[in-house]
Amino acid sequence: MLRRTVPRAFSSATSSLRGLPLDGTTINENVKSAKYAVRGNVLERSMELQRRMAAGEKLPFDTIVPCNIGNPHACLQSPLSFHREVLSLCISPTLASDHPHVFKKDVVERAKAYTAGLGGGVGAYTNSQGIPAVREEIAAFIAERDGHPARADHIYLTNGASEGVRILLTCLLRSGGLHDGLLTPIPQYPLYSASLTLLGGTLVPYLLSEGGNWGVEMDNLRESLATARAKGVEVRGIAVINPGNPTGNILAEEQIKDIIEMAVEEKLVVIADEVYQSNIWKKDASFSSFKKVACDMGYTGAEGDERLQLVSFHSTSKGYYGECGLRGGYMEVHGIGAEVRAELYKLSSLSLCSNTIGQLATGIMINPPKKGDPSYETFTKERDDILSSLERRSIMVHTALNDLEGVTCNRADGALYAFPRIRLSDKAKKAAEAKGVPADEFYCLEILDQSGIVLVPGSGFGQEDGTLHFRTTFLPAEATMHETLKNLARAHEKFMDEHRD
Amino acid sequence: MLRRTVPRAFSSATSSLRGLPLDGTTINENVKSAKYAVRGNVLERSMELQRRMAAGEKLPFDTIVPCNIGNPHACLQSPLSFHREVLSLCISPTLASDHPHVFKKDVVERAKAYTAGLGGGVGAYTNSQGIPAVREEIAAFIAERDGHPARADHIYLTNGASEGVRILLTCLLRSGGLHDGLLTPIPQYPLYSASLTLLGGTLVPYLLSEGGNWGVEMDNLRESLATARAKGVEVRGIAVINPGNPTGNILAEEQIKDIIEMAVEEKLVVIADEVYQSNIWKKDASFSSFKKVACDMGYTGAEGDERLQLVSFHSTSKGYYGECGLRGGYMEVHGIGAEVRAELYKLSSLSLCSNTIGQLATGIMINPPKKGDPSYETFTKERDDILSSLERRSIMVHTALNDLEGVTCNRADGALYAFPRIRLSDKAKKAAEAKGVPADEFYCLEILDQSGIVLVPGSGFGQEDGTLHFRTTFLPAEATMHETLKNLARAHEKFMDEHRD
Repeated sequence: MLRRTVPRAFSSATSSLRGLPLDGTTINENVKSAKYAVRGNVLERSMELQRRMAAGEKLPFDTIVPCNIGNPHACLQSPLSFHREVLSLCISPTLASDHPHVFKKDVVERAKAYTAGLGGGVGAYTNSQGIPAVREEIAAFIAERDGHPARADHIYLTNGASEGVRILLTCLLRSGGLHDGLLTPIPQYPLYSASLTLLGGTLVPYLLSEGGNWGVEMDNLRESLATARAKGVEVRGIAVINPGNPTGNILAEEQIKDIIEMAVEEKLVVIADEVYQSNIWKKDASFSSFKKVACDMGYTGAEGDERLQLVSFHSTSKGYYGECGLRGGYMEVHGIGAEVRAELYKLSSLSLCSNTIGQLATGIMINPPKKGDPSYETFTKERDDILSSLERRSIMVHTALNDLEGVTCNRADGALYAFPRIRLSDKAKKAAEAKGVPADEFYCLEILDQSGIVLVPGSGFGQEDGTLHFRTTFLPAEATMHETLKNLARAHEKFMDEHRD
Repeated sequence: MLRRTVPRAFSSATSSLRGLPLDGTTINENVKSAKYAVRGNVLERSMELQRRMAAGEKLPFDTIVPCNIGNPHACLQSPLSFHREVLSLCISPTLASDHPHVFKKDVVERAKAYTAGLGGGVGAYTNSQGIPAVREEIAAFIAERDGHPARADHIYLTNGASEGVRILLTCLLRSGGLHDGLLTPIPQYPLYSASLTLLGGTLVPYLLSEGGNWGVEMDNLRESLATARAKGVEVRGIAVINPGNPTGNILAEEQIKDIIEMAVEEKLVVIADEVYQSNIWKKDASFSSFKKVACDMGYTGAEGDERLQLVSFHSTSKGYYGECGLRGGYMEVHGIGAEVRAELYKLSSLSLCSNTIGQLATGIMINPPKKGDPSYETFTKERDDILSSLERRSIMVHTALNDLEGVTCNRADGALYAFPRIRLSDKAKKAAEAKGVPADEFYCLEILDQSGIVLVPGSGFGQEDGTLHFRTTFLPAEATMHETLKNLARAHEKFMDEHRD
């Protein structure tokens, strides 16, 4: 081995880091600045309370009720039988041949079809973009849903929708001080704000109209865009969450049209987060995808037609399915050219592929048993039970919230959340200031301490200056919902009484 | 709804983008520049050939042999029975109670234990860092492997090891023109080079010694560091892949010690990619983890001891397990303070959690059936069959490669690859130049066209100037390996004959 003399002291001396190789002073500042309140301080505090209860401490409640996150199975929602059995068979294909009477015929057939298309079973890396057969299934689902064609090679399977958002924003937001920005609704699911911070992009907020049932106001939107551009921000796209998180708003086709028109005029990529498309509670309302409306308007996205650039997201985590843990999801690109599609493929390749079980779960989600199939009846009963219970709970929660002193709450037309406005006294605000926390977080922490209910402060989603909110899911099991709402009312009343001006 | 007049033309005019909202000219340049050859041009070409064969075209071979990627199940390696059955039961817990004689007792018990710890089953989001019970299992595995304690709260479960690398490098590499760099072995698995490009970091190469069986030479390493620092690069860490990918080298404890000493002196975070730790082929060799050697040296990583900062990676994708598709993996941090650990947790939270099946698969991988368990015999037989066959194939491949004209290949002491050096004629190099591709890629494309074997050009991993290599796995099924190697030899001979000077 050749030994060369290298001046050690010299090389050390030229490092300008003052801290440790990796500590709070030397870590990437964008990481430190990113905020994700859904798993923030209130959740931290709930985990501490959980530990104290486990250690035998008496608290004013018996159980922690996690209303901070849309995690249905953690709130005892049951998985769908057909879906789970197919996945079990894909993992252990010999179960069906060794024990022929255990599984229904359509379960065995579906698992066989998937396994045949996998070439190496669930243990092999798939095409980086996802299993071709599942992408074909998704394309057929989209085509039927929208009445317009969809292409398997425009679909990318991802670990949940959030990975797709990360990959897309990584392509969209340029580094090197270019001040790229994204129009983002306020309030918004904080994946968007956190990702923007992380990638060095600028959040360009457009306020949803609380008085207009959290709808989008086009003048507002255009003004936000103009203001940001005047400040030198290169606005690259617009994020829309429909049905809304945390708002529950469902966009009407007319509103979607207006947004698409503006995106075409202003050269913005539309990022359509449609993960709640099966959670529609408003009577006579239905979900219209951005893709459908775009195609209706003539923006077909055919090769070469890039007038409208649209990327839509879906996930196994929501709907009536609620399979959060399996991390299934996809994005569909529309009006995005071959060069960019190849770059999206390369980024997917870097993590090789999304997990195969999540990919298959996505396939089963959008292609459930059909009328006449042996599993059809069980499936429809399971699905309808979940959806009708969610609808009832949505009404229970909204009614109860509007009964609270100083609280008003729009009806949730869709999705899994309520986002009520709370009016706190000056005394409460001063108490929060004294503790060094935002007033809405102070409120949520006090409610947690009294009731065990985990809420998320509105500041985590963004809210109009001078207003305060929180987000709650309506996922606690129906049998316990009355009790939960009573506990919330009691804790709220106590808070209000203790902080009267 | 309030209508305000916003000047549309003005807002449009201030956008300085020349291209479409998202096309080859407006996409993040770092994305375009990132290279990931494992799924690059040669694979693209193989997919095209596959399509042509499917369409009926006659080619000089009957089947595409994917030696480009360590994907054992795609090469017909069988999954382990115990492991898969536990996962099936976790997905469909009622299978065990409804059909009590189908599963062995230890399978049922393990699945029950996991399900109890999940609280909501596999369909619920877990703690963002991973299921606590699985992290405890991993900590116990590490403690037993290394003879030093490990902590569950220093372990982060991830979708494969690659997600962990992404999260860690996101923390380590600061943006905003700070010229942060990472010492990276050459040749290396291109996840590192691609991630560096993507994050705007600088690859600081240190050449592994081909003449020294691909070992690390400390003088080389120190010189690389000094050179980079002299150029103004802030070198933040050093990546080590052990056993090596693509080299197959196993680091001796002495070498690991030297690297650790240098990292402490020079304030570098050590990134130890140890995903091949169960793939050890060299007689009497064994795997020593960086964590073990660090603890032996007294760098305990106890709270407050941040002299050595080390992050180690493991995965379900390799070893004898080969569960690539399930995307299981973890990273263990050592000597990393609470503040940075909280930031790693926050980054994990942004994608909510890694997939539950991959998390459970990781638990089962490092905690397989023990002597006396009903599944123990089947498990050991399955494991040993896989490992002994891999060892035989490793020897077959190296012997065959060294028999080729102009080819020399170090023995693979570990991992799943051979990285032979090829010496091509000037005529071959000129033919490559005429086609506008690097000479090693030209070679790989010609071999593919003749034999159907998919190799990866050495340039995808990095290689010393003036040398050419390729990487091949030794994963094709043992029954077909002779035939594959004969086809490779034939294609190589043809190439050499056609390109003699």
